[in-house]
Amino acid sequence: MSDRQLALGIDIGGTKIAGGVVDEFGVVLDCVRRETPGNAVVAVEEAIVSVVDDLCARVEAATLGTVVAVGVGAAGWVSTDRSTVLFSPHLAWRNTSLRADLAERMPLPVWVDNDANAAAWAEYRFGAARGHDTAACVTLGTGIGGGVISGGRVQRGAFGVAGEWGHTRVVPDGRRCVCGNRGCWEQYASGRALARAGQELVEVAPAAASALLARVNGDASRVSGADVTAAALAGDPAAIGLVQEVGTWLGEGMMTIAMIIDPSVIVVGGGVSALGELLLGPARERFTAALPGRGYRPAAEIVAASLGADAGMIGAADLARNKLN
Amino acid sequence: MSDRQLALGIDIGGTKIAGGVVDEFGVVLDCVRRETPGNAVVAVEEAIVSVVDDLCARVEAATLGTVVAVGVGAAGWVSTDRSTVLFSPHLAWRNTSLRADLAERMPLPVWVDNDANAAAWAEYRFGAARGHDTAACVTLGTGIGGGVISGGRVQRGAFGVAGEWGHTRVVPDGRRCVCGNRGCWEQYASGRALARAGQELVEVAPAAASALLARVNGDASRVSGADVTAAALAGDPAAIGLVQEVGTWLGEGMMTIAMIIDPSVIVVGGGVSALGELLLGPARERFTAALPGRGYRPAAEIVAASLGADAGMIGAADLARNKLN
Repeated sequence: MSDRQLALGIDIGGTKIAGGVVDEFGVVLDCVRRETPGNAVVAVEEAIVSVVDDLCARVEAATLGTVVAVGVGAAGWVSTDRSTVLFSPHLAWRNTSLRADLAERMPLPVWVDNDANAAAWAEYRFGAARGHDTAACVTLGTGIGGGVISGGRVQRGAFGVAGEWGHTRVVPDGRRCVCGNRGCWEQYASGRALARAGQELVEVAPAAASALLARVNGDASRVSGADVTAAALAGDPAAIGLVQEVGTWLGEGMMTIAMIIDPSVIVVGGGVSALGELLLGPARERFTAALPGRGYRPAAEIVAASLGADAGMIGAADLARNKLN
Repeated sequence: MSDRQLALGIDIGGTKIAGGVVDEFGVVLDCVRRETPGNAVVAVEEAIVSVVDDLCARVEAATLGTVVAVGVGAAGWVSTDRSTVLFSPHLAWRNTSLRADLAERMPLPVWVDNDANAAAWAEYRFGAARGHDTAACVTLGTGIGGGVISGGRVQRGAFGVAGEWGHTRVVPDGRRCVCGNRGCWEQYASGRALARAGQELVEVAPAAASALLARVNGDASRVSGADVTAAALAGDPAAIGLVQEVGTWLGEGMMTIAMIIDPSVIVVGGGVSALGELLLGPARERFTAALPGRGYRPAAEIVAASLGADAGMIGAADLARNKLN
């Protein structure tokens, strides 16, 4: 049997759980994916334990090495001691002692991180933010997650909530958000924002939106972010227009990040980043045009993430492994 | 002669230059204040040299100790090597090599910092942010300055521009700002915002604004932030209403800081903070009501700065002294 020290990374989103066996170079040796079983705390915990058991069995069967730690990246705000999920806008966690609950059920050291912090760490260690001392990562899924790396560390803030820029307000009295507020950035620059824009276009201008309509059999309410993404990537001008609109809002919020954190790179990951330059082009354009002091200060690069959907599990595993050393 | 190691702190704002002799406990042993001589680069540099010469002569005359370093806190964005002022919204600095220019003219080691970073450092070392690992300081003058302390260090970001939240956008297509953009936070929560609100009130509702009108002999265009502050502190209900409005915007922007930096304390300093609870009360109220995840996460304390107008010089001096060690 190999004596390689492996870590498991478990990435828990509102819709999917992904677990991976990750080596010390950030390589995923094996992985499993499941649907998130509703948002009940106990069901999610059971699913995590089951994923860990499966992965451990696979590591043993294939004699890949020894699993030394488990890192959980959770779609919620995690306390600085990496134990408690304080709040999750998309799941039922409210001051949930996730680390203690899991530690009771598994014989391995376990730590919890915010999923976007984990993804940011992965991009910093093994991906698009390598070599940058100060990096911001924006994860675009249904909502917006964020993570800040500076001085070789995940910046968690005083209470673990640093980098939660999806819920900074970009429009006073703006669109209602799942967090209970109005005008949050993630209502303007995320998968949900793409879906909303697509639904509106289909209702208001069905002729212009014929390509989108065809994808949902004429049912406007079914237009998803993935539909708009697919139509845009297929070259539909109406969908590309929507992506530009969302990309412009993306660049607008990046300006806020630049003025507060001042990173040298802003990495854009998450499912929506599959749009690539269709999205990043307009974001960069707005960011560059709107940055205060432009021309007299260096501006952050805006780049696509390089680890794709695995970033969360890779980062969670690596952060857990580091905690051991 | 005393062998105490003293540092000079020179705080340069758009209207005033203040220089102080600062000991290792942050105590100002002596100080001088001057008007800023216009905004020409050379004139400002000459004024700094003259203030340093004056202070050195006074230290010698009073045998206070030995001046070992000079720290300059400048109202501009300063490169991370603390040498170059990249940009100043309020002065003429544009990629100005301030440190080299000054070093040619004085025999002492000199470092340059952003004035609000210097003030934040002073509050962290000797003032209202003592004991906090992650602190944000908001300096309210004509505009808004900011500084972030975390892990015992001033967080400068990749290019020196971290904490410049005065120019984050809080209103799309909002009020025009001195930085060239629209809708910047400092147009809604600063001395300038107070002045504008006062001028508007006097024009639109002169009867309600009689106390303010009396202060400016009936000339609306002359209403300053200081006038509104004085009227509010004297109990004028109309002025208090304006302060509440500005305080609410202050709390709104603090929410953005909390979601990105997540400090345990937000210290409010600068001239406008003389309003005390008249301003901080509404800010705290908005902040508490609007913070996403409220009730499920600790919230930053919002407190008044404790070092008053001396914070910039104390911090600049202490940062320069630290650089020696």
